[in-house]
Amino acid sequence: MTDYRPVPEDRFSFGLWTVGWRGANTFGDPVRPPLDPVDAVYGLADIGAYGVTFHDDDLIPPGSGAAARDQVLARFGKALDDTGLAVPMVTTNLFTHPVFRDGGFTSNRRDVRRYAIRKVLRTIDLAASLGAATFVCWGGQDGAESEAGKDDRAALDRLKEAFDILCGHISEQGYGLRLAIEPKPNEPRGDVLLPTVGHALAFIRELERPDMVGVNPEVGHEQMAGLNFAHGVAQALWHGKLFHIDLNGQRGVKYDQDLRFGAGDLKEAFFLVDLLEREGYAGPRHFDFKPPRTEDMDGVWASAAGCMRNYLILRDKAAAFRADPDVAAALAAARTAELAEPTLAPGEALADLRAEEIDLDAAGPRGYHFERLDQLALDHLLGVR
Amino acid sequence: MTDYRPVPEDRFSFGLWTVGWRGANTFGDPVRPPLDPVDAVYGLADIGAYGVTFHDDDLIPPGSGAAARDQVLARFGKALDDTGLAVPMVTTNLFTHPVFRDGGFTSNRRDVRRYAIRKVLRTIDLAASLGAATFVCWGGQDGAESEAGKDDRAALDRLKEAFDILCGHISEQGYGLRLAIEPKPNEPRGDVLLPTVGHALAFIRELERPDMVGVNPEVGHEQMAGLNFAHGVAQALWHGKLFHIDLNGQRGVKYDQDLRFGAGDLKEAFFLVDLLEREGYAGPRHFDFKPPRTEDMDGVWASAAGCMRNYLILRDKAAAFRADPDVAAALAAARTAELAEPTLAPGEALADLRAEEIDLDAAGPRGYHFERLDQLALDHLLGVR
Amino acid sequence: MTDYRPVPEDRFSFGLWTVGWRGANTFGDPVRPPLDPVDAVYGLADIGAYGVTFHDDDLIPPGSGAAARDQVLARFGKALDDTGLAVPMVTTNLFTHPVFRDGGFTSNRRDVRRYAIRKVLRTIDLAASLGAATFVCWGGQDGAESEAGKDDRAALDRLKEAFDILCGHISEQGYGLRLAIEPKPNEPRGDVLLPTVGHALAFIRELERPDMVGVNPEVGHEQMAGLNFAHGVAQALWHGKLFHIDLNGQRGVKYDQDLRFGAGDLKEAFFLVDLLEREGYAGPRHFDFKPPRTEDMDGVWASAAGCMRNYLILRDKAAAFRADPDVAAALAAARTAELAEPTLAPGEALADLRAEEIDLDAAGPRGYHFERLDQLALDHLLGVR
Amino acid sequence: MTDYRPVPEDRFSFGLWTVGWRGANTFGDPVRPPLDPVDAVYGLADIGAYGVTFHDDDLIPPGSGAAARDQVLARFGKALDDTGLAVPMVTTNLFTHPVFRDGGFTSNRRDVRRYAIRKVLRTIDLAASLGAATFVCWGGQDGAESEAGKDDRAALDRLKEAFDILCGHISEQGYGLRLAIEPKPNEPRGDVLLPTVGHALAFIRELERPDMVGVNPEVGHEQMAGLNFAHGVAQALWHGKLFHIDLNGQRGVKYDQDLRFGAGDLKEAFFLVDLLEREGYAGPRHFDFKPPRTEDMDGVWASAAGCMRNYLILRDKAAAFRADPDVAAALAAARTAELAEPTLAPGEALADLRAEEIDLDAAGPRGYHFERLDQLALDHLLGVR
Repeated sequence: MTDYRPVPEDRFSFGLWTVGWRGANTFGDPVRPPLDPVDAVYGLADIGAYGVTFHDDDLIPPGSGAAARDQVLARFGKALDDTGLAVPMVTTNLFTHPVFRDGGFTSNRRDVRRYAIRKVLRTIDLAASLGAATFVCWGGQDGAESEAGKDDRAALDRLKEAFDILCGHISEQGYGLRLAIEPKPNEPRGDVLLPTVGHALAFIRELERPDMVGVNPEVGHEQMAGLNFAHGVAQALWHGKLFHIDLNGQRGVKYDQDLRFGAGDLKEAFFLVDLLEREGYAGPRHFDFKPPRTEDMDGVWASAAGCMRNYLILRDKAAAFRADPDVAAALAAARTAELAEPTLAPGEALADLRAEEIDLDAAGPRGYHFERLDQLALDHLLGVR
Repeated sequence: MTDYRPVPEDRFSFGLWTVGWRGANTFGDPVRPPLDPVDAVYGLADIGAYGVTFHDDDLIPPGSGAAARDQVLARFGKALDDTGLAVPMVTTNLFTHPVFRDGGFTSNRRDVRRYAIRKVLRTIDLAASLGAATFVCWGGQDGAESEAGKDDRAALDRLKEAFDILCGHISEQGYGLRLAIEPKPNEPRGDVLLPTVGHALAFIRELERPDMVGVNPEVGHEQMAGLNFAHGVAQALWHGKLFHIDLNGQRGVKYDQDLRFGAGDLKEAFFLVDLLEREGYAGPRHFDFKPPRTEDMDGVWASAAGCMRNYLILRDKAAAFRADPDVAAALAAARTAELAEPTLAPGEALADLRAEEIDLDAAGPRGYHFERLDQLALDHLLGVR
Repeated sequence: MTDYRPVPEDRFSFGLWTVGWRGANTFGDPVRPPLDPVDAVYGLADIGAYGVTFHDDDLIPPGSGAAARDQVLARFGKALDDTGLAVPMVTTNLFTHPVFRDGGFTSNRRDVRRYAIRKVLRTIDLAASLGAATFVCWGGQDGAESEAGKDDRAALDRLKEAFDILCGHISEQGYGLRLAIEPKPNEPRGDVLLPTVGHALAFIRELERPDMVGVNPEVGHEQMAGLNFAHGVAQALWHGKLFHIDLNGQRGVKYDQDLRFGAGDLKEAFFLVDLLEREGYAGPRHFDFKPPRTEDMDGVWASAAGCMRNYLILRDKAAAFRADPDVAAALAAARTAELAEPTLAPGEALADLRAEEIDLDAAGPRGYHFERLDQLALDHLLGVR
Repeated sequence: MTDYRPVPEDRFSFGLWTVGWRGANTFGDPVRPPLDPVDAVYGLADIGAYGVTFHDDDLIPPGSGAAARDQVLARFGKALDDTGLAVPMVTTNLFTHPVFRDGGFTSNRRDVRRYAIRKVLRTIDLAASLGAATFVCWGGQDGAESEAGKDDRAALDRLKEAFDILCGHISEQGYGLRLAIEPKPNEPRGDVLLPTVGHALAFIRELERPDMVGVNPEVGHEQMAGLNFAHGVAQALWHGKLFHIDLNGQRGVKYDQDLRFGAGDLKEAFFLVDLLEREGYAGPRHFDFKPPRTEDMDGVWASAAGCMRNYLILRDKAAAFRADPDVAAALAAARTAELAEPTLAPGEALADLRAEEIDLDAAGPRGYHFERLDQLALDHLLGVR
């Protein structure tokens, strides 16, 4: 059987906060010891990752002075050199500290908003210095429990202001960075601003430099709203805005589970990988997951390895699915390709369309044969073809 | 006590399919007799509505010849004249007939797509002739149960093609119509294309004439995805795209309930009305609901009257909430207005922002006083202030 | 590769209403022609089913006189004889007719309740005459949209009265039938009485003859409440109450999808089959699904065949999972068997337990190794081991 | 207007962990300082509560020696004496410490299960010494992310063993305590054992002393599964098992929000209070909520006061609703009382029922008039009658 061993060419990356998650949540204390970022780098390299990502505070302890910061960066840089790991993406922690309890870019307090932008600017500089291509912005604390206290119009104005400032800075500095907005419907706030991929895509178009900003959809975030992740990513791709992606697992509409990739909705994961590979998505396959609290560090690494293994398995299956002549026949029967044909012929006048008739009695009963096709997909997914 | 009797100036409108809903669903046969559209018009006028809306097939029985159609329109027109009711919005039924079982604009079958566009074009002409300002497009059958059979990129291309055709026609004809897309996450399809307000807003920006197309958000449709409707409408307003609105009630993430307005999430309904009124939304307050199957025609009319009554009650309460000096004080304590202040001062250089310091130990513990404000809102909603 | 061809020994059964579903729902007209029950029987036999089930009205058109009924039963009986198909379960339609718009056993109208019981009694007699072992009761219309109109205590009293009457009748007649309650959280009512397996199990214990009544859990019904179906079935088994089961597919918290088995949450389906097979569940594997409206009759039969195929595939995989020595090792590492050991030793006094100490600093960090085990399950499910 | 000032006779109680919640969660650090339990007692007395409840660790810091513990209890006892506050309920923390990462009573590790029982026994002794009437058991860590690692049958056996042990101890000691199980569908575990009120009610009947054990339903926990809380409580009352109740607010199917009572689904809260008051529920009205992280200590106390205020407002409204002659007429029209009539007449033979006929054509169209009734409820809730 295939080994499914990841290699750097697979472009798998992990956040420091994933294997480094200590397990603290609303109902429980940390269950695992801190993981030195440098150890994380070596560990990720060992299991076959090509990249590591981080929030500023994951790498540089908040409050560090310049010397401490330099030392951290030197150690981290050495680990990157030793392992060849890239830093394809960096992001900012605008949620952990109490100061962000009402959000970062859209906190009702102006001094907090200013601090948030400042913190991001500093992290952008760091990201650029490390050669990152993408800078993710997750505004999970930008939201509300009560509609009374938050002026949505003003919040969107401030969010736009912040992104315009960031794009201006990146542009001015000539950094090769693009921003990617990560939507989420709720948690930690009752309702979060820009709750889905769709809301973020719409928002981006109002920015001064919409070309510099895309989305970073996360499997579980869309699924927390009961939305189909593959369809959401497809729309992002259609807009040319899939700048980055967060892969993990979620089992339905509930709290943010951040399971390992593949451990959630398996069928949707299959169609997601199929989509990314067929569309030639060239960015990192980034895992943003939380190894369950039941795991010790052995389990953490097993969980991380599982993320990549599942991607590789699904990639193989999706390729086999697309190469299967029975699937081609079933796609033809389902008339999938017919949807790519323009509805109006080139140059056709509306009058022709309007003059046409359809025999509804004959047309209504026609079937679409999706069940046979879907079962072929399942057969491939289950490995029985 | 106030009477809460609606008058035409309140701009309440109802679909023929609401009071005329006969109650057929997956699990039950119709429970009510057909309601003649003309009787619906008189009935709606009696209870204080200002407008009536319809799908083509609600008014003109499918398959009607030209003479039958003219007769229907004449009778309907007379009822409109008699009552003074307007037709502010018209829409097309692209879902009931089996021919639409895989969608209208994005059916895999090209002849169905052509028929769908043709059906809409005809209905647009009718809408224009009746003086409607808005034409709603709900594509509930445009979706999939299996990702395998539907090419999302092609589906979005076809959807764009259809909207570009429609806008071209409207423009060419000089109609005063605007299109409004109605999003829905699922049902009747497992996943529906353009599942939320956000996805629709993003899509619109890719059209040839984005200015002619906005959204028609429906309370229950966003809430079926667990999304906060007031926040979604606020974002639509921010984009200048709230062209129409469907008011009803939904009790959480489940099947599409279409309860009367006010019978779902009451707090969110309060903040919605507060938002629409403060923002000066000038369009119709359109009710798209289904009187429960338990009701006979008396219950149907009671349910319709309840929709308007609840809007008026909430409008009063929202006004009182905004006029209450205690609320003003609570808003000040919550620093709500501070969010409207630009984060950067006019002309301020980034360097100044970057040089600024914040005392995190002092800033973290500061509270936002939203609970007191939210309780004042509840007090107003409950009528105890 | 294995053929996964079902044989009668696999005990697969289908409702007449599954392959016979014509596709009418809230938003669409029927898309398929009626299917003669006799044709359904031959068709099911052809694809390898061992049994067929039905609601009274599926088989005998409502309003049939005695002669028409006899004729229907004769034709149906002949088809059963010809094919060898069994009728392991029968149920009553207490939902389609408008008379049941407020429920059957718990309608506010006493004459409806009396009619509902009468209709069930007649169907029970029929079920007994056909040798059915199980009689399912689904009370989907027993519920409410508004809490105001329904007295829950009275509703539960009436539900108990109905079940006590039915059990009394079965017992008096000496029928070999057991009743199985099918819970559902909502749809077609806003909230349904006995919304989950748990609520039904609790209710049963209040009956006069609790031993005669069990549950008929349906995959999608529990998943519509976001509940894990395998865990729910496990609890039903623990209570000795899994009298029957409805297999299908659902993709999360939304309307009742009734997809083919395997087309919903695949991982949960795997663990469900694993559970049923390990526990030696001896009842029928009954499919209660609705072939999507996109399908013509070819698609309907493909969909039905897919249900069985997926069960057989998962049964094989579950067996291989349990036979894999690596899984045994992973289960040992996860200490799964240790949970079967009584927490107190036989005869141990509480005083001993209370005197014991645990070293929390040592015990807290211990991991449970579930991720490795779960990945082995996924590997088997995906067919890569 | 009424003051809605709570008095001890209203029987409002709060957990120490509510006003004392510091705000740490998965995404954020604590935002508020520790609150001394003694200060909590005085504060709660000041705002009109009659009782205070706690987890063992809320009151007695884990690891305290005997002397420290005595000192804590002495200080706490003095505060109780000073204020007259009761301790109507006590519970055990079986979730915070890493040792409980796989559960307490059903951890795969036997030594953890033994420690969990030991910890509960000690807390039961303390509860009895303080005169508590109810002991709540919430097993939120008893669950799983993967079905592979947890044997459900064994888990239920162990859970039963634990409850049998606890009941035996309480019985042997002659304590006047009853146990109340608090169900929850998920969070912090992916799926939690006994996910709903129904599952807990069913489980209780398998215990050695089912009379000693009831349920402690929590508003948000049932609503996290999309279940109607009022209906769930009604079923618990029907079983005679509503031993305690946790009041709070939740806005739909998402993470556990623990909002203040009234700030979630307002209509359901109205019908809940209506139910509790009409049924004469005599236990404490216990608030288990978390003041949002946006609040400082002023906001915390405002939030706590809001819980009680909302209960009192709703109690008044429910009483007015029931006293309104229009409501009585609407209830009669809805035939609500008819559901309390036995479906069979006393002594009636089944033969009579079976001989009866119903005129379906006449009976089907009859309406139930729930919409008018529901609107009256809304009118009362909104304070416009």
